[in-house]
Amino acid sequence: MIGHGFMGAAHSQGWRVAPRFFDLPLEPEMTVVVGRNAATVEASARKWGWAESATDWREVIARDDIDVVDVVTPGNTHAEIAIAALEAGKHVLCEKPLANSVAEAEAMAAAATAAAARGIRSMVGFTYRRVPATTFARDLVAAGRIGEIRQVRAEYLQDWLMDPEGPMTWRLDKDLAGSGALGDIGAHAIDLTEYITGQRVTSVSGILETLVSERPLLGEGIGLSGTASAERGTVTVDDLALFTGRLESGALASFEATRFRTGRKNALRIEVSGSKGAIAFDLERLNELEFYDATLPETGLGFQRILVTEHDHPYLAPWWPTGHMLGYEHGFSHQVYDFVTAISEGTQPRPSFDDGLHVQRVLDAVERSSAAGSAWVRADD
Amino acid sequence: MIGHGFMGAAHSQGWRVAPRFFDLPLEPEMTVVVGRNAATVEASARKWGWAESATDWREVIARDDIDVVDVVTPGNTHAEIAIAALEAGKHVLCEKPLANSVAEAEAMAAAATAAAARGIRSMVGFTYRRVPATTFARDLVAAGRIGEIRQVRAEYLQDWLMDPEGPMTWRLDKDLAGSGALGDIGAHAIDLTEYITGQRVTSVSGILETLVSERPLLGEGIGLSGTASAERGTVTVDDLALFTGRLESGALASFEATRFRTGRKNALRIEVSGSKGAIAFDLERLNELEFYDATLPETGLGFQRILVTEHDHPYLAPWWPTGHMLGYEHGFSHQVYDFVTAISEGTQPRPSFDDGLHVQRVLDAVERSSAAGSAWVRADD
Amino acid sequence: MIGHGFMGAAHSQGWRVAPRFFDLPLEPEMTVVVGRNAATVEASARKWGWAESATDWREVIARDDIDVVDVVTPGNTHAEIAIAALEAGKHVLCEKPLANSVAEAEAMAAAATAAAARGIRSMVGFTYRRVPATTFARDLVAAGRIGEIRQVRAEYLQDWLMDPEGPMTWRLDKDLAGSGALGDIGAHAIDLTEYITGQRVTSVSGILETLVSERPLLGEGIGLSGTASAERGTVTVDDLALFTGRLESGALASFEATRFRTGRKNALRIEVSGSKGAIAFDLERLNELEFYDATLPETGLGFQRILVTEHDHPYLAPWWPTGHMLGYEHGFSHQVYDFVTAISEGTQPRPSFDDGLHVQRVLDAVERSSAAGSAWVRADD
Amino acid sequence: MIGHGFMGAAHSQGWRVAPRFFDLPLEPEMTVVVGRNAATVEASARKWGWAESATDWREVIARDDIDVVDVVTPGNTHAEIAIAALEAGKHVLCEKPLANSVAEAEAMAAAATAAAARGIRSMVGFTYRRVPATTFARDLVAAGRIGEIRQVRAEYLQDWLMDPEGPMTWRLDKDLAGSGALGDIGAHAIDLTEYITGQRVTSVSGILETLVSERPLLGEGIGLSGTASAERGTVTVDDLALFTGRLESGALASFEATRFRTGRKNALRIEVSGSKGAIAFDLERLNELEFYDATLPETGLGFQRILVTEHDHPYLAPWWPTGHMLGYEHGFSHQVYDFVTAISEGTQPRPSFDDGLHVQRVLDAVERSSAAGSAWVRADD
Repeated sequence: MIGHGFMGAAHSQGWRVAPRFFDLPLEPEMTVVVGRNAATVEASARKWGWAESATDWREVIARDDIDVVDVVTPGNTHAEIAIAALEAGKHVLCEKPLANSVAEAEAMAAAATAAAARGIRSMVGFTYRRVPATTFARDLVAAGRIGEIRQVRAEYLQDWLMDPEGPMTWRLDKDLAGSGALGDIGAHAIDLTEYITGQRVTSVSGILETLVSERPLLGEGIGLSGTASAERGTVTVDDLALFTGRLESGALASFEATRFRTGRKNALRIEVSGSKGAIAFDLERLNELEFYDATLPETGLGFQRILVTEHDHPYLAPWWPTGHMLGYEHGFSHQVYDFVTAISEGTQPRPSFDDGLHVQRVLDAVERSSAAGSAWVRADD
Repeated sequence: MIGHGFMGAAHSQGWRVAPRFFDLPLEPEMTVVVGRNAATVEASARKWGWAESATDWREVIARDDIDVVDVVTPGNTHAEIAIAALEAGKHVLCEKPLANSVAEAEAMAAAATAAAARGIRSMVGFTYRRVPATTFARDLVAAGRIGEIRQVRAEYLQDWLMDPEGPMTWRLDKDLAGSGALGDIGAHAIDLTEYITGQRVTSVSGILETLVSERPLLGEGIGLSGTASAERGTVTVDDLALFTGRLESGALASFEATRFRTGRKNALRIEVSGSKGAIAFDLERLNELEFYDATLPETGLGFQRILVTEHDHPYLAPWWPTGHMLGYEHGFSHQVYDFVTAISEGTQPRPSFDDGLHVQRVLDAVERSSAAGSAWVRADD
Repeated sequence: MIGHGFMGAAHSQGWRVAPRFFDLPLEPEMTVVVGRNAATVEASARKWGWAESATDWREVIARDDIDVVDVVTPGNTHAEIAIAALEAGKHVLCEKPLANSVAEAEAMAAAATAAAARGIRSMVGFTYRRVPATTFARDLVAAGRIGEIRQVRAEYLQDWLMDPEGPMTWRLDKDLAGSGALGDIGAHAIDLTEYITGQRVTSVSGILETLVSERPLLGEGIGLSGTASAERGTVTVDDLALFTGRLESGALASFEATRFRTGRKNALRIEVSGSKGAIAFDLERLNELEFYDATLPETGLGFQRILVTEHDHPYLAPWWPTGHMLGYEHGFSHQVYDFVTAISEGTQPRPSFDDGLHVQRVLDAVERSSAAGSAWVRADD
Repeated sequence: MIGHGFMGAAHSQGWRVAPRFFDLPLEPEMTVVVGRNAATVEASARKWGWAESATDWREVIARDDIDVVDVVTPGNTHAEIAIAALEAGKHVLCEKPLANSVAEAEAMAAAATAAAARGIRSMVGFTYRRVPATTFARDLVAAGRIGEIRQVRAEYLQDWLMDPEGPMTWRLDKDLAGSGALGDIGAHAIDLTEYITGQRVTSVSGILETLVSERPLLGEGIGLSGTASAERGTVTVDDLALFTGRLESGALASFEATRFRTGRKNALRIEVSGSKGAIAFDLERLNELEFYDATLPETGLGFQRILVTEHDHPYLAPWWPTGHMLGYEHGFSHQVYDFVTAISEGTQPRPSFDDGLHVQRVLDAVERSSAAGSAWVRADD
């Protein structure tokens, strides 16, 4: 595993727990975690149960006893590491968003295609596809239970940047983070929309907005911790992204990604309205799916709150009895299960790097639309 | 109409509005409202649109131009007025609870039976039967949609007595009010249970509790307004009633009536669990009914939030388009519609005085059970 | 009252009920209702309690015993009637949207200004401002409880056009209805946003979409009822409007108006996010307001579900005890109360025709933006 | 760990995961899991990551390299194993309910007291105390935020026995399971009430009911799996328990435990009403706590939905960022953290065997009350 921030903890939990619940065709070994600082990465290795730590990812990639590379570094390093790993013949799981630019993502997708020809697998880490309720939503849509899709609303609402005195961090610097709310959380809303509807966003019109443009620098400059200083840095990413996309079928989807929606902590929500029904999901209640069956008699119509905790629901069989809830990190176990199964079976896991590239194109199109006064911009070429 | 408190306003609204929306077979005329104080009852008449006011209900009952008497006085006067009105050949609508004692209620039921033989109709004002969602719940149960009833939970939760310095009023005096939370709101929970299930409560075990036993007297003694004085009066009714009842089918129903459930303002809730499904209702969201259909496939199970606002839902046809909400007082229009229709058609309106007598028996049985250390007491004889 | 469709019923209920609960400075008399068809308007008069009916609105406007004209006809006739009434010295209450075009609305606003100089009052019927919960939301915002406004989401979601075999009616014809979801329900979302935030929308970018472009004609052509025929008419209005607006303060507001949001019946929702808190409202639960106070300690943060049914909440004093719900038509009583009070006091009631004109400008700007590929269009000039 | 059913999986997850997130003073080693069948327990050991498996718990308890014994067997074996382990000087974590009878529980509590004198620790596994939201509820109550407790409602609602053709299993046999819904889930409701209020239940009145008294036997008799046979066994435990308890302060608490509440899957709910506020919790939404602060101004009153996912909420610091949800099994990690910390610090972990004995006394009192026609029975001696 390359990288050991918050995502490192989540991925480690996935690798650790998945084999204890799912019947994996291969038993993953948590061999080595890589970071730039020898002391802190060694601490992470010990904490998370990796056998070793290392500071040079190139050396690790060159090792014969490594079969899989899990990339959880910031987005600006994904391309270099993932491409090198694929070329070294390692299966690669890469955190989302795939890259910080379309060009990088294209190179990665090309490398993934080339690697696939040699039996090497790659996947992007959009784990919210693997919440049982979202997978079940996709299944209902695919089974025609909501009919033809008429419109979509997808939003990812947080409020952790509300305080204008909150510090300037790497996530607010375009060079490091690529974009702001758009790429960090909007990417999830786009991927989830494409996953559940089975359709891609082909063009977009939107606007990006930075609500707080200067923030206190931390003592040591841009970072994740430290004491705020009197100096101020310039926020170069968006705080809020509002955009409309057109899906392949022609239906419109309306998107919002924001870190300023006061009181909403982690509300990735999607509602898909169809000719025969609708589904609605909210990550703040991740064990529930709302389903509306418009084919029922008029007096019996209403959104159903389905607890997606039955053994026959997606991913649920090895977990707990009905009504016992899953949490955030279970998606990472499901990701490991799917990824390892695909490697073992020699199939292409999804979301592929191509899927990730497409999301990157949509993000890029939103930025271009915003720059062009919300003009419609194609996202599929 | 005899009486002109809060219920007088609600009943007046029913008489005024029902003919403007429903096709009534007869056009009600709001002739005269009766109260003890000539000035205040005259003000009420003017305010609520009654043609006249009067202070002597006996005189009014004797009038030839009066066909219907609507009794909205405190419970301790119901029996005398209603029986006199029935004997005078007037149709009687009487607010709940029917009376303050079983003996009074028996006399009233007997008078109602005698009057019915002469074509005179009588009805008790349990208006929460006439919220479209509760009527629809009854319809679903009657149609077998939840199968055999397994258990019931019914509760009526308020918190307006929370403040121990809230004044001593007539509602807290057993002589005037009959009982406390039990009779005032518990009676609704009992009636709604019997209405929706179609079964009567045959025996009960329970406990009554007074949480604040002394409260400041108002300047002029017990009343509805005025300044609290230093003197204290003794609360002689229950603040909280917890009891279990057995229905005719043998199923158990658990009840709670309380004025101390902090934060709950008017939560009359009922959940009926059956072998094929369940229904759940909360008066704080009175336009909604939750329905669970256990015959669906396991992965598709979940409570549906039905907006009971379709034209085909009970009572809804003359009101607004789908999704436009009704409020508290609409039940009083529905009551007028049902009562006038029954009078016109010569049928027995429900809940009858017999239904009201039965609720009175249950209330009485709860009081006796509480006095007997929660021993089971029959409610049906 | 000119007009006697669905809105006629609602307005009649307002005129009938308001004086029975509120202390009005003047007692309204329900004199005459006007419609084109003598028989049906006479039936409406009888049904709704108007003393007379008439078929020529010009004659009615000329009558000396008429002080107030209430216009509830389709939008394409508002300008002619309202201007004539104002010129005849009648106070005018006009249903929303003010008109079908900016030009008409401008003429109406000019007439209103001229009339105001002569003491004649005019008001537009955006009644959702007068739901106690929305008025209370405005009060909280005005009192600074949510701080500086950061962003707004406003949506009005219905699904009654879902069925593609639903008939072609006047509401789907641009000549008669002006626009589709945009003007019919989007106008409410705009007005409510401007009302609660106290800010106007200054520019917009958006898209209008017609999802079902042909529908069966009714036997007699375009109408509200009748049997669907084999012939098809062309829908010339939008089914779905998605747009972003910028408020005076610079904050962005995102809007959606749709008649294809499967399962949503009448969900006028607004969420206003501020630097100190947020408010959220949904018309499907109109007695509730969600309020988030970001100034509380972090562990105690959360949206509060406030039942807006206390006597000290807006408009609530004359109604029922705490926890007793209001419904859709109560807003019309509140409208009568405010309108009559303003007439009596000689003040300008709100929303004024100027307010209505501004909403019309926003609607127009959205149409122009949609036609211009979602380019930003100014709405304030 | 002795036992390897469903609880074995949950406890294993706790032992495995707790050290990876919490800073434990001691590093637990997952040494050996014990079961009766050598093959299946070996499979469990491999699956869950225990180093060894064994079939004789007495041998395991005698081993010097074992410091802690975790008992997750059925209730009828708890006493024998736990007492032996304590006498062998092992710290003991025992699943709830502590035992199948008061006598057994008394013996266990006595053994725990004796062991404590030698520095040996013991704890009962009521993990629902360790959901952050319930712990936070306890903290709010302890801090006086809801004032004096006025009444409590606690219920644990499931519906998995709804199908009368569901098979006869050991959980339905009184000899093996001790009791039905009462001991299995009602015990949680009792413990949670006592934990959050800080008060014990001193007496009870209640009724136990078996709704389906005969069920198909499985092929091999009573068991957890197999094919249902034509033969029927007699259900000897309750399906539904309804009881009222009095707390030490005199407040009443109303309880329900049921496996027939159609549509409710795992709804452990508690609402505590106090003189200054209230808290409400539902395990089906375990990351949320509802809190009502009655000291706010009347127009601002309402239940707050607090997402209990802040770093400063109980147990949350080592987990994920705000708004990222925990699931069912996190409570088992929290249990390991608390238990290991107490062992290390030499303090008494809670709930102690004495706490477990008290719950057992309440369960026993409910059974006796039910047998005595719901008479009040003391639970504290």
